[in-house]
This record gives sequence, C-alpha cells and structure tokens, in this order.
Amino acid sequence: MGARAAVAGASGYAGGELLRVLAGHPGFAIGTLTAGSSAGTRLGAHHPHLHPLADRVLEETTAETLAGHDVVFLALPHGQSGAIAATLGDDVLVVDCGADFRLDDAGEWEHFYGTPHAGTWPYGLPELPGARERLRSTRRIAVPGCYPTVSLLALFPAYAAGAAEPDAVVVAASGTSGAGRAAKPHLLGSEVMGAMSAYAVGGLHRHTPEIAQQLSAVAGAPVTVSFTPTLAPMSRGILATCTAKAAPGLTAAGLREAYDRAYADEPFVRLLPEGQWPSTAMTLGANVAAVQVTLDERAGRIVAVAAIDNLTKGTAGGAVQSANLALGLPEDLGLTTIGVAP
Amino acid sequence: MGARAAVAGASGYAGGELLRVLAGHPGFAIGTLTAGSSAGTRLGAHHPHLHPLADRVLEETTAETLAGHDVVFLALPHGQSGAIAATLGDDVLVVDCGADFRLDDAGEWEHFYGTPHAGTWPYGLPELPGARERLRSTRRIAVPGCYPTVSLLALFPAYAAGAAEPDAVVVAASGTSGAGRAAKPHLLGSEVMGAMSAYAVGGLHRHTPEIAQQLSAVAGAPVTVSFTPTLAPMSRGILATCTAKAAPGLTAAGLREAYDRAYADEPFVRLLPEGQWPSTAMTLGANVAAVQVTLDERAGRIVAVAAIDNLTKGTAGGAVQSANLALGLPEDLGLTTIGVAP
Amino acid sequence: MGARAAVAGASGYAGGELLRVLAGHPGFAIGTLTAGSSAGTRLGAHHPHLHPLADRVLEETTAETLAGHDVVFLALPHGQSGAIAATLGDDVLVVDCGADFRLDDAGEWEHFYGTPHAGTWPYGLPELPGARERLRSTRRIAVPGCYPTVSLLALFPAYAAGAAEPDAVVVAASGTSGAGRAAKPHLLGSEVMGAMSAYAVGGLHRHTPEIAQQLSAVAGAPVTVSFTPTLAPMSRGILATCTAKAAPGLTAAGLREAYDRAYADEPFVRLLPEGQWPSTAMTLGANVAAVQVTLDERAGRIVAVAAIDNLTKGTAGGAVQSANLALGLPEDLGLTTIGVAP
Amino acid sequence: MGARAAVAGASGYAGGELLRVLAGHPGFAIGTLTAGSSAGTRLGAHHPHLHPLADRVLEETTAETLAGHDVVFLALPHGQSGAIAATLGDDVLVVDCGADFRLDDAGEWEHFYGTPHAGTWPYGLPELPGARERLRSTRRIAVPGCYPTVSLLALFPAYAAGAAEPDAVVVAASGTSGAGRAAKPHLLGSEVMGAMSAYAVGGLHRHTPEIAQQLSAVAGAPVTVSFTPTLAPMSRGILATCTAKAAPGLTAAGLREAYDRAYADEPFVRLLPEGQWPSTAMTLGANVAAVQVTLDERAGRIVAVAAIDNLTKGTAGGAVQSANLALGLPEDLGLTTIGVAP
Repeated sequence: MGARAAVAGASGYAGGELLRVLAGHPGFAIGTLTAGSSAGTRLGAHHPHLHPLADRVLEETTAETLAGHDVVFLALPHGQSGAIAATLGDDVLVVDCGADFRLDDAGEWEHFYGTPHAGTWPYGLPELPGARERLRSTRRIAVPGCYPTVSLLALFPAYAAGAAEPDAVVVAASGTSGAGRAAKPHLLGSEVMGAMSAYAVGGLHRHTPEIAQQLSAVAGAPVTVSFTPTLAPMSRGILATCTAKAAPGLTAAGLREAYDRAYADEPFVRLLPEGQWPSTAMTLGANVAAVQVTLDERAGRIVAVAAIDNLTKGTAGGAVQSANLALGLPEDLGLTTIGVAP
Repeated sequence: MGARAAVAGASGYAGGELLRVLAGHPGFAIGTLTAGSSAGTRLGAHHPHLHPLADRVLEETTAETLAGHDVVFLALPHGQSGAIAATLGDDVLVVDCGADFRLDDAGEWEHFYGTPHAGTWPYGLPELPGARERLRSTRRIAVPGCYPTVSLLALFPAYAAGAAEPDAVVVAASGTSGAGRAAKPHLLGSEVMGAMSAYAVGGLHRHTPEIAQQLSAVAGAPVTVSFTPTLAPMSRGILATCTAKAAPGLTAAGLREAYDRAYADEPFVRLLPEGQWPSTAMTLGANVAAVQVTLDERAGRIVAVAAIDNLTKGTAGGAVQSANLALGLPEDLGLTTIGVAP
Repeated sequence: MGARAAVAGASGYAGGELLRVLAGHPGFAIGTLTAGSSAGTRLGAHHPHLHPLADRVLEETTAETLAGHDVVFLALPHGQSGAIAATLGDDVLVVDCGADFRLDDAGEWEHFYGTPHAGTWPYGLPELPGARERLRSTRRIAVPGCYPTVSLLALFPAYAAGAAEPDAVVVAASGTSGAGRAAKPHLLGSEVMGAMSAYAVGGLHRHTPEIAQQLSAVAGAPVTVSFTPTLAPMSRGILATCTAKAAPGLTAAGLREAYDRAYADEPFVRLLPEGQWPSTAMTLGANVAAVQVTLDERAGRIVAVAAIDNLTKGTAGGAVQSANLALGLPEDLGLTTIGVAP
Repeated sequence: MGARAAVAGASGYAGGELLRVLAGHPGFAIGTLTAGSSAGTRLGAHHPHLHPLADRVLEETTAETLAGHDVVFLALPHGQSGAIAATLGDDVLVVDCGADFRLDDAGEWEHFYGTPHAGTWPYGLPELPGARERLRSTRRIAVPGCYPTVSLLALFPAYAAGAAEPDAVVVAASGTSGAGRAAKPHLLGSEVMGAMSAYAVGGLHRHTPEIAQQLSAVAGAPVTVSFTPTLAPMSRGILATCTAKAAPGLTAAGLREAYDRAYADEPFVRLLPEGQWPSTAMTLGANVAAVQVTLDERAGRIVAVAAIDNLTKGTAGGAVQSANLALGLPEDLGLTTIGVAP
C-alpha cells in the first residue's frame, strides 16, 4: 500500500512536483491534497500535466484535513509551516519544503525572514557529512532551499577537505519556477524570455545565511558567502558557479581527489568526467546534481559548477529522498537520475 | 529479465528518448547501442542526461552488432531501415522509428522520399480503429511520424464518425528536436529562439501523405490534407490545430460524443474537460496526447487541437507502447502519462 | 519641432512600443505620458529599456492631461477610448490602438465586446485597397488588431484578385506580449516557456469579426473566417498561416502575380523570394511584414504565411505609419523595416 | 554622403549587426560586403531581417574587394585580420571586431590563441580612462571582446577609484549569438533552450587575459581575474556578475560615488537608480550598458552587475562608437541607447 502521504500547498510548483514524484513512487499512496485560495478547485486546473490526478479536489489546509496520514509534505509560504506542524503527531513524518526550520541561528532567521524563529529540524541534504544518519532517525525534515542545495553540492567537498579559503563566491542562474506561481509582472513570460537579470544582490537573498551555515559546519570554521542569484529564461534548473581561493599548496589532483571521495558512492550526484561541465539540461525532472570542479592556477581559485533541477533535486525529489531515509525505505526508491533531454 | 532490446541510432534524439523510456521499463533489458559516425564514443558524450548509461560505448550499426536481441528499435535516417531489417530474424520484433515502412502507396513513397519503396508494416498508432489488433500479432512495426501522430489523434474521431468533410487543414507547431540533431545553421539556438517560422509549405512535407493515408482509411474515402508545419522556439512538443468543414447537420453535442466515444478507454489520450485547451506543457516527457475539439458554428468548421511530446508519444513512447502490444505485455507497462511541468 | 504627441496608457506594452518608435522619429516631440494605476510613477520603473525617458513621470489619463497636443495615441484597455476621444478637439489627431472603433457592425461589436458600440473610424492598415486615401484626410484612426494586421496582409491580395473561395482558415502563433502586461498566472514565464497552447478556439477571439469584415470588404462578398490563435514561447512576433480554397482555374503563376501586384510598391511589406518562408525573426522591432504564398495543387488550397512584430507593425509602428499619412508626413518617416536579429 | 564603409565577414552575426547599425547611420554609406564560403550568395539568404540590403551579393574577402573604402570593418575569424589589414592604406580606418590586436603581451596572445602575435591597436572601449583620446587620433581600432566590454564596464570604476582588491571574480551569462554562426551540435536550439551551462571554466576562455590586461592598466597594478562564462537560453545579451574584495575602509557611499563619477557624462552607460538591477532586456539592440553596484558588507565584497547586448555595445555598436570618434563625428551619431523590449 505504501505510506499515506498528504501534500499541503498542492497547487503551487513545489506541490505539483511533489505529486509528480509521489505518483510514480511505489512506497507512497497519495492522500489529501490541500491549498490556500485554490481550495475547492480541481487539481487539473492547476497541474494539467498530472493527468491521472486531474479530478482530485483540493481541500483547505487545516489540522483536520492533514490528520490521518503517515507523511505530510508541506509546500507552504514561508512562515506557515510551524503552526501546521504543531498539530501533527510526533509519529507523523513531516517534511517541510519551506524555510521555517532550516536556520540554526534565531537572529539570522529574524534578520532575513522578519518573523519569530520556529526552530531547527534535521537538514534534508543527505550528501552532507553526517546528514544521512540524522535523517534516518527523525520525524521532522527541513528540506534545503534550491540555491543552497546546488551551491552546497558544488562546494562542500572543497571545504570538507580543507581545500578552500573561508570566503566563497556563488553566482547562480535559476529558472523562473524557483520564484513560485504567484503572478507578478516581472515574472511574466514577456519579461523573462530572452533576458538574464540579477536580483537580491549584495547578500540580500534569504538563502545566503543557509549556505553559509552549512559550509561553516562542514569547514568547522566560519565561511562567508557572497551570493548573487540571477534569473534565467527557462522554467526549471539552476546552474551555480562557485569559487573560493585555493588553500595554500592545493593541487589539481588533490582537489579532484576530494570530490571523487565525496561523491564516489552518492547515488544522486554525478561528478562528470574531467573536461565535461554541467548543464541544467542533464538534470531536468531528475533527482540528480551534475558537478564538476577545477583549479584555476593563475587566479589561485577553485571553480566548482553544479546543476540541478530546482523543483526536483532542489525541492520535491530531495524531499522524497530524505523521506525515504526517514521511513527506512531504500534511499533511491521512486527516484530517477535520468533527466528529460533535449 | 525482460526482453533484450537493441537501439540502432542511439546518438540521435529519437535514440536518446528510446533509451530514456527503456531505462525505466521493467519489461526490457538494454542491449547493444549503435551509431553511425559516433560509433566508438561514450553515450555520455551525446546524452549526458542518461547518467546511468553514460559509460556505455556505441557500436557500429551492422547485422552482427544487432544480432541476438529480442527487440531491435531502429532510429536511423530515412531509407536505412530496410537493409538492416532484412538481416534480422522473423522472430525478432523490429520497431522502425523511421519512415521507411509507413506508406502503403509506392508511388507516394517515391514522390516524397525519392528512393524505392521498402514495403509497408503495421502502423504503430494503437488508437486508430483496428490498429491495436494488428499490432498484437506482428513482429514488424512502423512507428508513425510525429506530425501524423498528433494530427491523427486530433482528427480521426471526426472522420470515424462521419462528422467532417474530406478536406482537412492542419497547421502544426513543432519544437526543434523534431528536426533532429544534425547541426544545420537554421536550427541554431540563435536562429530559433524568439522566432516562429514556417517551412515545407504547400504540401511539401513528407508527413502529408502519411496523414492523408490514415485519415482516408478511417473515413473510408479519400481525404485531402493541407498541412503546414511551423518551427517553434522550444525543444520538444507539437501543437496541431486541425480543422475541417463540418458535415451537414453536425451538432456540437454530436461532435463531442464522437470524441468521447473514441477516447473513453484510451490510456494514452486525454480528452480535456470542455473549455480547457491543450498545451504541449501538459505532455512533456509523457506518453500522452491532450485533445480538445469544438464546433465553430459561424465558420461551419470543426476545430480540433492536440498536443504531444514529439519525442515521447510522437516517437519513442509510441514505439514502446506498440512494442508492449506486440510482446503481449500490458500496453502501459513502463509508460507514464504524467508530464514534467512547469 | 515636430508634432507634439501624448501617449495615454504609456506603462503597458503598446504604450512602451509607441514611445520607442516616437523617440526615434524626427516628426514628433513626446509630450504627456499617462497611465492608470501607475500614474505618479517613473517611466523607468516600467520600461527600463527607454533609457532617455526613464525619469519621465506618468500622469493620470484625463481630458486635462491630454489637452494641448497635436496627436494623442491611445493605448488603453478596450472600451475606454471613446470617452477620452470625445474630449479631444476635431483638429487633434487621435490614434486609437484599442479595438473600440474598428468594427462597422454594432451587433458584432456588442456580441464580441459586450459594451455599446462607440462608432467606426478609418482603419489604419494603409496597404488595404483604398485605405491610404482615407487615412490621409482623417483626424481619427482605428489601429488594427495585431492578428488582423498579419492575417489581412497574408490574405487580402488573394481576395482582391478573386483567387480564393470565401472560407478562410487562419492559425496564428503569437508571442506573449500580445496578451498585455497584466499579471495572469497562465502568462508567467514558467508556464509559457517551452510550450505552445491554443486559446479562444472556435471563433471566440475578438479579432475574428475584424478579419472577416476586412476580407469581406476586399472580396466584395461575405468571407467567413475560422481563426485559431495560439500562444508561442517568445515575447514578440506573430506568424500567421492562412489558407483558403483556390478559386477554379487559379494557377501558381496567377497567384504569384496577384501578390506581386499588391506589394510591388508597398514600403512596409516584403514579399519574399519564392521558396523563402517568413520567420518572425525577420521582423523584430521593425515596421514590416514578411509575406509568402503558394498554391498547394493537391489540396486545392492557397497557403499564405505572414510574419510581423505584433508590437511594431502590429500596433505601434502601424499606428505611426498611419499617423504619418494623416499628418502629411512621408509615410516611412521615423520607421525602419530592418529588424533586430538574431 | 558619408564615409564609404566595407564590411568583411558580412554573413556572420557580427557582420550582420554591423550592417544593421550602419544602415541607420547618417555618417556611413555601405560599400562592399565580403564573406568566406558564402561569397557569391545574396545577403538576404543570411540576414533576412536586413530587408533593404537583401539583394546585395557577397564578394570574396580580398585586398581588391576591400580597396577604395574610407572605413573597413573586419568581422573575421580570429587570426585573419592581420593579413588583410596589412593591405589597407594607413589613411583607411580599420576597425577589427576580432581579437587579433587586443592583447599587449605577445606571450599571452600565443598562450591563448596559438598563433604569432599580430600587434596591438588602440582598444575600442571609449569609457576606459584615456581611451577616448587615443581613439580620436587613430586609424586602427581593436574592438573589445563582448565579455571584456561588459566586465570592464562593471568593474573598472571600482579599480580606478582604488576601491577593489586585485583579485576579481567574473561570472557571465551570454546569449548564444556570442558563439557565432558556425553550426555546432551544442549550439542547436534543441540543446540550448531551457538550459544553462558553463564552459571554458578555470581561466581557459580567451577573454580572460583581455579583462585582466585592462583592469590592471586601470588599477596601475596586476589584477588577476577568475572568469567563468556560461551559456544562457537566449540569442543576445550578456549579464556579468562581477565581484572583488572591498579595499579596507571602503564605504557604500564611497563606492557609489566612484561609479557616479565614472559614468556621469557617459552617453552609453546607464548607472541605474539604486535598488534597480540590470537585465539584458534593457539593452537589446541598443548601444548601451546598464550597470549597478553594491557593497556586501557582511561578505566584504563589491558586487557589480552589468548588462549589454553582446552584438551591439559588445561588438558592432561599440565598433561604430569608436569609429565615430576616429572619424571626428559625434560619438553618438547613428547610435541609440533605446533597446527593444519586452
């Protein structure tokens, strides 16, 4: 039968992607679907690509509608997860795709999100050192942000190996689905097609402290992050170009070895053959990150590039990967690393 | 274990999509992969999205390399399938994604393709009247062209019901992957992004006689087709807008009923709720056609619109659907109707 | 100095394109710019591409703010032009980019727009038979819709020459800017990129009666039009594929001659060399239509294809072309036929 | 009449853009157009958007065909400009859009281009300190690369003001037209649409030493550059995100002042109002750079972002701007800062 799973926030892009992944997953049965202002409407009005689920009707997001499930996936606006999670039993696996439980530091949370800190849950990026073990024994998972997912997968092996100085620069290009489904003029097709633009420059993006927190944990010392997000004319995908000064004495071979070691056994990260660089096209709809790294000896910098699908490995696929661990299922159950291309 | 399947022409877009579908199919084991000028190279150099198969090496396309399989999928340039097929045993299921065996009429073949006619195999569009039965008992399948697939699914119910006059107009917009992977200047990203263009106008496209042949068979009388293909700035997908004069006395309800009847039990065609019109976004990477129809009473015309992914339902997914039938497997084994969106 | 021109509705796409064209036009001086809910804001917040005008402040759209100009361009939502136009003197040239004054038939207007008919002004498509003369002596111009512009330029020579039967089929693919700037979910970049979709199918689009009215006038007899608009993943451009049964005895040479004759001296229509077909890329940002036509002898149909930039020749450029005529300026003053490509 | 100008390499994208700019320029008359393998063909076969020039025939690129012009624009593959330039008189203004004469250091040239160094010509970026004066008195101009143009405009004010440490990080996203028109599989529309990818990572791109050379000159000390180019799914435009450690004591106000000072009187650079960030959409088809800068105090880094159209300000527009200076014409003659948007 599989674990009975509810999806709260099913009308948005994260919710739709959760349903796409869950619909092909043998370990889950799709239970209640909820929404905010779209409650009462058919799922097919929002996600016509989910043909078999098109006639499902969205319910309101309440303690009652979400009760009675083994797993609840939350794909709600930031700040709404805490109250709902509090109504769910400790034996229910709650997987929060929002930001509410990602940051350790209450001050950082309040600085970037402007609301009281809800707490901290195990961080759902199994590839990070020690993360897999924590996820196997939890009933609460904070799914990483999409930019942190791709940035951390690009950079953490360098920090884990002591190969990089504690001053990282990340420039990431994201497809527009990362900005969600609320209709805003600057996200209209007419505005984004044929255009690249920068936004939240100068450390203003909320994912900045999340990246810094995790890199610092890996490095065992504070890492500062200059993070610039840019908007690319595509629906899905993030390409992150990440660079940091090389530690003294670092060699190209040593750097490669650090990445080989980090990713030798990871089912959802593909370290590309040397000379091949990531494209988001390698990852569309797949729970996979494509990673490559090099040492620019002239500039004295490590350059690591990673690509993911922001909705799959960056949100819903990553959420299910962590949920698999928490439920004692095979980590790769119901997940594919094969993208849709061209 | 599954049927052992070879893919000839694995480096192209159709070949890559066949591998994407087969890799997730429990009824097949992927055997030999062959190519033309790319023989000897790694699959990952051509299809980096197929991560688990990246280290497979492409072999030459010969009788020897293709021998010893239960199924051979041919994704070769038009005109090359006949010679290879002749080397394969009668017990081997041969599924040709090329055009070689689609046309009944040798004269039409020679007029449009300029080479001798190789013959005619059962046409792999199971939704057509009588097709499913023919496919269940064959070892040779001619996979339809992508434009015929979508055009026929839009129009055949009208002709099957006698609702349309024998003079159809089809205007279809295709993503660029339909033009294949050979590097031609007019297919460069710089040329196609931000642009719609028409080509092969005036009945010159090779899919024109294929559409006419099948509609005529359904109608039981000659149907002429004005077919105009256009190139759209997207990788995948075809949207076909199809119109024909309404037969005398046709009502909107009667038209709807004809489509309801045709598609009530079809697993891979979704007749949308009235008022909702197809988008290729509903079909990306899925073996599904989204169809809608209306009667324009002022103009006296039926207007039917269908959307598919040209590489999936339009080529590789359709090929596997027909192969499932020929092998006695469930028709929907290994195939999904859920697309990747947004 | 040039004629002093106001633009009402300057914050939208049509308004922005009017300003782009006027800013490079030696015959106009840009006067007051008005807006609805954006009144009081800087133009640069809406149209950052109009660098020299970025600090202009938008005023409210009122009789007072629009007074004192030689020319007033109206780029307002349908139904708002009549009231404003009534406040402007008979000596002021009023150029309405809205639909309000396009239709002759009050019943048709009310059927398609649902409001009382405001009247009919000379139709601003100078290429139509007799239109240029009417535009030279008017102070009121109804700028055609973008779909009618491209459809009429594709088809009218056939009807003017008696080459086509009175039953036209038009399928047009438009960039998203044609849908305007109001933020609607289905126009988000995430929804439109990578996708083609149909809408307002079955004769429901408001441009249908406009096309039929003008073709009927040219043909001297009623022409019915089956019109299907589709949305393409690009910001600008329309490609219209137009087909009609060929009149008895029509030859390819006769058809070509009709188009040669119609467009021999037209500065803003380019009949392409035989064998070359229009692409919207030929027209981006230019006041030009690219046209091609052929006779499909098997299907017995004329197929004409035309491409324009919906905002330039389809709206703002066409508006200025007609305004040039009305003001006694050279028709091509300040207008280019050179597009931006690739 | 204007200066008689030849364009060598007219069939490529840079050549086409030169013709687009020159066709609207009152100071030039377009003379001979030459090409390599396309010699003998009509310009309209390559650049159908240049309607008025469509029937021009391309000649071979030789000393003879290029003789007799006042100005020769070279848009040739790297390494071919030197031999042709040597055949042109010292009184002829030669404007090289290739790389041949950009680098001062012969060793750097040979390292990155693999051919003997041809020499160094005045660098055609008038905005750089001292450049305008050099360009006013030269008959030889090396037009900058597109990436250097945008990167230098983003960063040089910081280096000129002593605000940045000598270790710059540039990540730039380019449209595909920057890769030229040669048909290569990875530049097919099917490959690039919907995808971001990195290439030439780790200091391998040939524009790296060009950026470093110019920044070093401005800073008066060696500046190293980590440069990562990425390919974006659009035809035109580059967005460069540039960051460098802030010099000790730098304040946000001081940084702003440095950029205000650098760009106060520059006709082709628009320093945006604070809080508004560049988009390539602000620059399409225009000879303009949109620039913004901020100080990330937490990360201790300057972040400057600039957008250009790679073919206009990044190549052909910049070339004409410099040619205007060399010919004693107004610097902005025939050039617009108004882009085409949306």
